[in-house]
Amino acid sequence: MTNYKRYHPVDAMEYPRYSGIRTFMRLPHVTDLSEDVDIAIVGVPFDTGGTYRVGARFGPSAIRDQSMMLRPYHPQLDVVIFEQCSCVDYGDLATAPGYLPESHQMITEGAAKILANEGVVPIFLGGDHSVSLPLLRAVAEKYGRLALVHFDSHSDLWHGYFGGKDTHGTPFRRALEEELIDVGRSSQIGLRGSGYDKNDVTMTETEGMLMVSAPQLHHQGIEKTLEQVLARVGDGPAYFTFDIDFLESVTQTAREI
Amino acid sequence: MTNYKRYHPVDAMEYPRYSGIRTFMRLPHVTDLSEDVDIAIVGVPFDTGGTYRVGARFGPSAIRDQSMMLRPYHPQLDVVIFEQCSCVDYGDLATAPGYLPESHQMITEGAAKILANEGVVPIFLGGDHSVSLPLLRAVAEKYGRLALVHFDSHSDLWHGYFGGKDTHGTPFRRALEEELIDVGRSSQIGLRGSGYDKNDVTMTETEGMLMVSAPQLHHQGIEKTLEQVLARVGDGPAYFTFDIDFLESVTQTAREI
Amino acid sequence: MTNYKRYHPVDAMEYPRYSGIRTFMRLPHVTDLSEDVDIAIVGVPFDTGGTYRVGARFGPSAIRDQSMMLRPYHPQLDVVIFEQCSCVDYGDLATAPGYLPESHQMITEGAAKILANEGVVPIFLGGDHSVSLPLLRAVAEKYGRLALVHFDSHSDLWHGYFGGKDTHGTPFRRALEEELIDVGRSSQIGLRGSGYDKNDVTMTETEGMLMVSAPQLHHQGIEKTLEQVLARVGDGPAYFTFDIDFLESVTQTAREI
Amino acid sequence: MTNYKRYHPVDAMEYPRYSGIRTFMRLPHVTDLSEDVDIAIVGVPFDTGGTYRVGARFGPSAIRDQSMMLRPYHPQLDVVIFEQCSCVDYGDLATAPGYLPESHQMITEGAAKILANEGVVPIFLGGDHSVSLPLLRAVAEKYGRLALVHFDSHSDLWHGYFGGKDTHGTPFRRALEEELIDVGRSSQIGLRGSGYDKNDVTMTETEGMLMVSAPQLHHQGIEKTLEQVLARVGDGPAYFTFDIDFLESVTQTAREI
Amino acid sequence: MTNYKRYHPVDAMEYPRYSGIRTFMRLPHVTDLSEDVDIAIVGVPFDTGGTYRVGARFGPSAIRDQSMMLRPYHPQLDVVIFEQCSCVDYGDLATAPGYLPESHQMITEGAAKILANEGVVPIFLGGDHSVSLPLLRAVAEKYGRLALVHFDSHSDLWHGYFGGKDTHGTPFRRALEEELIDVGRSSQIGLRGSGYDKNDVTMTETEGMLMVSAPQLHHQGIEKTLEQVLARVGDGPAYFTFDIDFLESVTQTAREI
Amino acid sequence: MTNYKRYHPVDAMEYPRYSGIRTFMRLPHVTDLSEDVDIAIVGVPFDTGGTYRVGARFGPSAIRDQSMMLRPYHPQLDVVIFEQCSCVDYGDLATAPGYLPESHQMITEGAAKILANEGVVPIFLGGDHSVSLPLLRAVAEKYGRLALVHFDSHSDLWHGYFGGKDTHGTPFRRALEEELIDVGRSSQIGLRGSGYDKNDVTMTETEGMLMVSAPQLHHQGIEKTLEQVLARVGDGPAYFTFDIDFLESVTQTAREI
Repeated sequence: MTNYKRYHPVDAMEYPRYSGIRTFMRLPHVTDLSEDVDIAIVGVPFDTGGTYRVGARFGPSAIRDQSMMLRPYHPQLDVVIFEQCSCVDYGDLATAPGYLPESHQMITEGAAKILANEGVVPIFLGGDHSVSLPLLRAVAEKYGRLALVHFDSHSDLWHGYFGGKDTHGTPFRRALEEELIDVGRSSQIGLRGSGYDKNDVTMTETEGMLMVSAPQLHHQGIEKTLEQVLARVGDGPAYFTFDIDFLESVTQTAREI
Repeated sequence: MTNYKRYHPVDAMEYPRYSGIRTFMRLPHVTDLSEDVDIAIVGVPFDTGGTYRVGARFGPSAIRDQSMMLRPYHPQLDVVIFEQCSCVDYGDLATAPGYLPESHQMITEGAAKILANEGVVPIFLGGDHSVSLPLLRAVAEKYGRLALVHFDSHSDLWHGYFGGKDTHGTPFRRALEEELIDVGRSSQIGLRGSGYDKNDVTMTETEGMLMVSAPQLHHQGIEKTLEQVLARVGDGPAYFTFDIDFLESVTQTAREI
Repeated sequence: MTNYKRYHPVDAMEYPRYSGIRTFMRLPHVTDLSEDVDIAIVGVPFDTGGTYRVGARFGPSAIRDQSMMLRPYHPQLDVVIFEQCSCVDYGDLATAPGYLPESHQMITEGAAKILANEGVVPIFLGGDHSVSLPLLRAVAEKYGRLALVHFDSHSDLWHGYFGGKDTHGTPFRRALEEELIDVGRSSQIGLRGSGYDKNDVTMTETEGMLMVSAPQLHHQGIEKTLEQVLARVGDGPAYFTFDIDFLESVTQTAREI
Repeated sequence: MTNYKRYHPVDAMEYPRYSGIRTFMRLPHVTDLSEDVDIAIVGVPFDTGGTYRVGARFGPSAIRDQSMMLRPYHPQLDVVIFEQCSCVDYGDLATAPGYLPESHQMITEGAAKILANEGVVPIFLGGDHSVSLPLLRAVAEKYGRLALVHFDSHSDLWHGYFGGKDTHGTPFRRALEEELIDVGRSSQIGLRGSGYDKNDVTMTETEGMLMVSAPQLHHQGIEKTLEQVLARVGDGPAYFTFDIDFLESVTQTAREI
Repeated sequence: MTNYKRYHPVDAMEYPRYSGIRTFMRLPHVTDLSEDVDIAIVGVPFDTGGTYRVGARFGPSAIRDQSMMLRPYHPQLDVVIFEQCSCVDYGDLATAPGYLPESHQMITEGAAKILANEGVVPIFLGGDHSVSLPLLRAVAEKYGRLALVHFDSHSDLWHGYFGGKDTHGTPFRRALEEELIDVGRSSQIGLRGSGYDKNDVTMTETEGMLMVSAPQLHHQGIEKTLEQVLARVGDGPAYFTFDIDFLESVTQTAREI
Repeated sequence: MTNYKRYHPVDAMEYPRYSGIRTFMRLPHVTDLSEDVDIAIVGVPFDTGGTYRVGARFGPSAIRDQSMMLRPYHPQLDVVIFEQCSCVDYGDLATAPGYLPESHQMITEGAAKILANEGVVPIFLGGDHSVSLPLLRAVAEKYGRLALVHFDSHSDLWHGYFGGKDTHGTPFRRALEEELIDVGRSSQIGLRGSGYDKNDVTMTETEGMLMVSAPQLHHQGIEKTLEQVLARVGDGPAYFTFDIDFLESVTQTAREI
């Protein structure tokens, strides 16, 4: 670990991986991001936007639990992450369960405070997908209109339901309305499964984004898809978001059905 | 089943209990309560008021699933319920997940519609305990101030938190403020466990209700407790509510600790 | 939902998907199939034919539970099912657990009653695979000899065991003996895994049906396989059956081993 | 282990309890009972008599798995069982899943073979409670009419259902009809919970047996109950049977409700 | 929280209980114990001493997860803990999984470092019970011979097995041999269940400690038992240890069996 | 079963698969291997070498439980195994949980006893991967230096950690040091996932073995890989070992990421 940057995990060869306080990858829990921080892991434990199953408020702690299994070297990319980046676990943003607009406000403010530290790249752990809206607000406030790179099995572009405008299915519709997203540089990858009508499938492209459905992804492969997506992003700022149900979009069974 | 009232379950001797559409106890699903209905089972699948674990929105369907095990005769009470009462499953009230005030409004309206049918006693299946507030509003609107008979391990009299007034821990505080409850006729039974401060334990009595803590319940027994509670209720209208964590209030382990 | 046929699910935009009585996809529970019914979902909760794990009697209710996740539009087929078909949940057929011949008789009679309604296509939810025999009897009684289109990892053509003729592994052997199946138009797709001897693998073709093993399926692809199968079926009546362990026949791991 | 009888478990001090073939308590698997066997553990893996949940066919193997936790000395009884008795695991009786009368016949025959060995006391592990009927037939054939000592939350004296006579709820009704039980010496202990009508509760005494309900058991205590039960048994042969749901009959919660 | 001592949990009214880094009760993670620390929570994640089930190495993190449910006020004791004590989560001691003597050495050294801070009371979270031996070594080194107050269903006084001296069943035997325990002031409470021979039950008293078996505990009650135990402890230093299987020693079912 | 060799499983057509003592595939439990034994299944229930999750000591019994599902005929290989080989379940080797060097010694000795029987091929069921070291010692003692054919997602070539030399990640490093492996004839197949540094990926080839990573395996296919591996093995003695996490190395998701 001699070449590691300032903030890095506890040494698993000295201190077994099941030991110690469960921060992400057992990184230091640091809330002052003003110095020597490249990447900040930030939990956003909120699920009031969920319309079917709930419990994603326990998502950040569940991800931290499983992160004990991660090791610093990635063989395909041939990189030891902590030789490149100084990383911390910032903890969780405050939210008010059951209070969606209030929580979104709190999330935007919390994210803005982190983004105020130059050079820090936050990685947010949700939470239901409604949290992307307040996060996009904070990020676009700082960087301007963003390329959206969105891996998911749904477009999350619905207009709303139950009379409400904000759910886990609507964040990118709101973000489009608020002009936070630069559609010409944006993509949605992995869409599949059943919807309410044809519009559920076509609206990504109607709005001007690239849509790569799960079957298309399988036919053209991940490599070519990433090339396409990155070519669209270009040099401008981008917001990458990954929904856990994308995982099933890359399995064999989704290929042709 | 010859002596049964009009609405009663499917005969388990003819049609095995694992068969058929899962209404409560396999009662008929009836939404017109204007005739021949004594008891209506009504789901209130809402959990946006939950501040820690969530998922109680699946409570009504989970209770229906387990109700397959219930049989009509109760040996200690020596009663065959369907010889006394005509019972239906009304289905669930509409709610808007993530939208607490709107859902509370929908619940009050939904309950009022049911209560408009004279002689029908609704039994509501939650949902987190915040649903008791809109239900109390509907019931008190019809019957006037109510004796609260509340079995729970917490008083749910908190003032609020996270800046919000409505959660699963606050419904009876709001109900007191709105003068829906007749405290002199009310009781809270089974309180136990840890709180934030002494006030959590004393506020039931400060507000004028009877408090029977879990240890007291064990020392004096269920029989004597019920006598006390019922004597307080007297002849006026009452609202009975049961929180699932009361179950642990009657086990041995709670007796002395 | 303006273009929907008469019977269709509750609107999930108005009434959240976790709400209400758990019929299949929250379709109306309708037992009079004489008018305006294209498709009837019918549970067959029977597992006395199971020789190892049991519990498939809870299959229909488990499928109904999960069906809450289905939405009406299928993107690959580009169809909104309820614009094409009026669909109901008929409930479950009666059975007598532990009594196989009696239950098979009840299933045949129950299915015949449904089939007596012209134009209604029933979709039966099992249950162990032994229920296909009484269902085939009812269907063949009405339509004559049937093309079998059978997706499964086993042929279910065994002769019997433990001295008994009817189990989840024997329905199509019995159906062949009773001449319910038109072998020249029939196929079994997805066979794989271990058997008792070579005969387990060859008997599909010995009987004159097309066999597409799981490895073959992977090598030639689903598209070509379906062409083959449908060409065999031709214009005559067909019985389609799908065993849940076929799912593993289409995953990658089965491809070469 | 120097004072142990011939057949006893592997020494857990030498060979860790998670090791080895999973016989009951890691006793020798012995099928020749003609010599030196006092107690034979015998599995009866059959659940075709179950009318709701099934899976008790895996009961014997599940009990064997958990038996690894048992140690030979019982502190309250102050006895080291293997100093008193030579014990073996005989394995399981053969059955035909899905074929109830045939399996009952096989169980009676299998049990008779074991009972043919003088001095061997078999302990049968079920299986659903329907297996008690064929076992009672075998035992009564050898010893004559038996005192039934039955710990259960139900009397299992139902007459039948779904048109069938044999289920997990009927074995003792059939045994009464076949005069296998000496009712004057018999008891049913622990009955509780809901039934179909009053008859479900009174029929134990109507038939001439002693009934100790779960609430009675709590009020008078286990000690006094056992005295009563044993006094009735007297010196004649007895058949002891224990249903797993009796366990909940001895918990606190059942005491007053 | 105005009266709280220096170190106390995050305010659950401001920051929901499911949020933040999972220290014990969300206390500050503090490793400098030299000032303002009354109680230090310390994990000892080690289970190489377990002879049957293992996984207690995940015990400290599991206890931290569940501790989110604890609130600061205890109603029966009428105390707000953080008004009395300043509490921290120190994290976990280092151990070497699979290496028992080496880990015991590491645990003793780690504990000694904590005990070097005057006035700090450590509460150790295991880990299998073998960790009590190295902890007793550290505590006795500082305070001298200790009264053992041991709540458990086993005495953990075994001499050894599999040829090894240290397992989860032997720590107090070793502690007696090393004269770490003042037997005249010590007690073992809650012993029950099966053993290997009579000696398993008598050895507590043979060694000069008080033994209160689970049945005795039920007959005389917790209150009287604690009086007895505390009277023995007197004014000298004491080591309190609690094994999770003691919980079943206080339930009703253990009362008479 | 007329063509079966001497030792083979119970007939599942006569004796249902959920019945009987749970040896591997319900083979006879035979410990005298001197005659008529081709293959011996041998459990090695040891997990003291595990550095994160533990519980592999229950691996042999879990594998035996699942083996009930195996049938004797393999359709792709077109072989009925018991017509070719006489197979037994030998039971488990003795180990001392918590005592790694002692257990390794016991495992080597136990394996040597089995190997002393000419013509018997043992198949060992772990257990954490540390057990491969004592097994390799026994096998190399008899046959000389071995070709290692190792299917795993890790190379298990680490030098050691926590100050200890033996864990589930080190057996093949030790085996190289002890010259038990003939590297020129050896291969490691399926390596993938994160490591501590680049060396984790390169050391297989540095040591002179063939490395086929999971992505390489997907690109070239199983068939070609096996050809390569077998060509290296040649005619000399080989030791085949399979780690359960190799299973994920052959799924689609591992293909490109």
